[in-house]
Amino acid sequence: MTIFITAYDRSPDGGKGLARDTRVRWALEEVGQAYEVRPVSMRAMKEPAHLALHPFGQIPTYEEGDLALFETGAIVFHIAEQRAGLLPEDANARARAITWMFAALNTVEPPILELANARLLEGDKPWSRERIPLVAERVRNRLDPLSARLGNAEWLDGAFSAGDLLMVSVLLRLKPSGLLGEFPKLAAYVARGEARPAYQRAFAAQLAANTGSKPPAG
Amino acid sequence: MTIFITAYDRSPDGGKGLARDTRVRWALEEVGQAYEVRPVSMRAMKEPAHLALHPFGQIPTYEEGDLALFETGAIVFHIAEQRAGLLPEDANARARAITWMFAALNTVEPPILELANARLLEGDKPWSRERIPLVAERVRNRLDPLSARLGNAEWLDGAFSAGDLLMVSVLLRLKPSGLLGEFPKLAAYVARGEARPAYQRAFAAQLAANTGSKPPAG
Repeated sequence: MTIFITAYDRSPDGGKGLARDTRVRWALEEVGQAYEVRPVSMRAMKEPAHLALHPFGQIPTYEEGDLALFETGAIVFHIAEQRAGLLPEDANARARAITWMFAALNTVEPPILELANARLLEGDKPWSRERIPLVAERVRNRLDPLSARLGNAEWLDGAFSAGDLLMVSVLLRLKPSGLLGEFPKLAAYVARGEARPAYQRAFAAQLAANTGSKPPAG
Repeated sequence: MTIFITAYDRSPDGGKGLARDTRVRWALEEVGQAYEVRPVSMRAMKEPAHLALHPFGQIPTYEEGDLALFETGAIVFHIAEQRAGLLPEDANARARAITWMFAALNTVEPPILELANARLLEGDKPWSRERIPLVAERVRNRLDPLSARLGNAEWLDGAFSAGDLLMVSVLLRLKPSGLLGEFPKLAAYVARGEARPAYQRAFAAQLAANTGSKPPAG
């Protein structure tokens, strides 16, 4: 059964890999599952056909036969549940990997999004210069304990899992801020994620879609 | 096997039910699972014993035999997976319910948290009065499509699920802001959630813990 996902026809980041379809592409690559991409314009995202798939008018979505899903975390989880490679078999280890998925999206990403909003949506406001350091401090308040927990381990809890996939993806958003450089263990962790062949293929595919270049032959 | 969760010894909201242990209590009540609560002080949350359970030094945590989990969404999901009542049996319906769990926590809650931060952490800043309406508008940008999708349905997708439990919990944070009143369908949805006997029991239990009153005999 063919899997269809949606992505921006032109990502606002121009192909830096920060649009959320990259997370889904990465998960599909990790489990070795082929997929097709349906590009959607910013305008079409807010039209009824797309809203029927994604109530918040965003990307990515996921379709497989009569199943239609939205919300990146849920799609990555569905892929991880259906196919081997992203969740451990041991029940307790599996529950802990799922914990890191939620921690990435509900504990670590919100202050990172707030920092992104402070720059993108409020960068021209008179308070911007004074406020950004306050928001950056809230991000550090998450990165500090995350770095302490990771320590010198390769991944957050044993083998690479969907929890690492989402945590690395969330941390990647910090690259332009320079904050990651303050946490060398986290910077090295993100670099290990980016070095995975599955990430490389996912990144190349979204870059090709955004620049019109051909992805490297797989 | 006894289930232990952690909660604030005194919740910062004084028992309004907004601390995240309420979400876990509610899930446990929905599936009819007894539990014990270990109260933790703000200071103890940042000490090594608690950090070993919860790397970000927060509550709630969940312990069951040799399994230890943190992160509310993951705990609610674990409860929903282990016991009947919070996830549909049909595979596609189950995947959609999980989608709403992630949507509540990663799409709807972040702007609501940002609004809470704007009031709680930046209420005394010179930009507060001008900025709060901007952040409130970001919340409306989520509530509007959520209300449209819910329409006149009782719950988000068929029977009440863990997705509704988390969405109602997230929306409850908006009560003091008055924003919910602008969306009568969502206000009624939240009221339906609050009216559930399992929510009532969870709320009463956290209130009793915070005020020293006795919970009603179950």
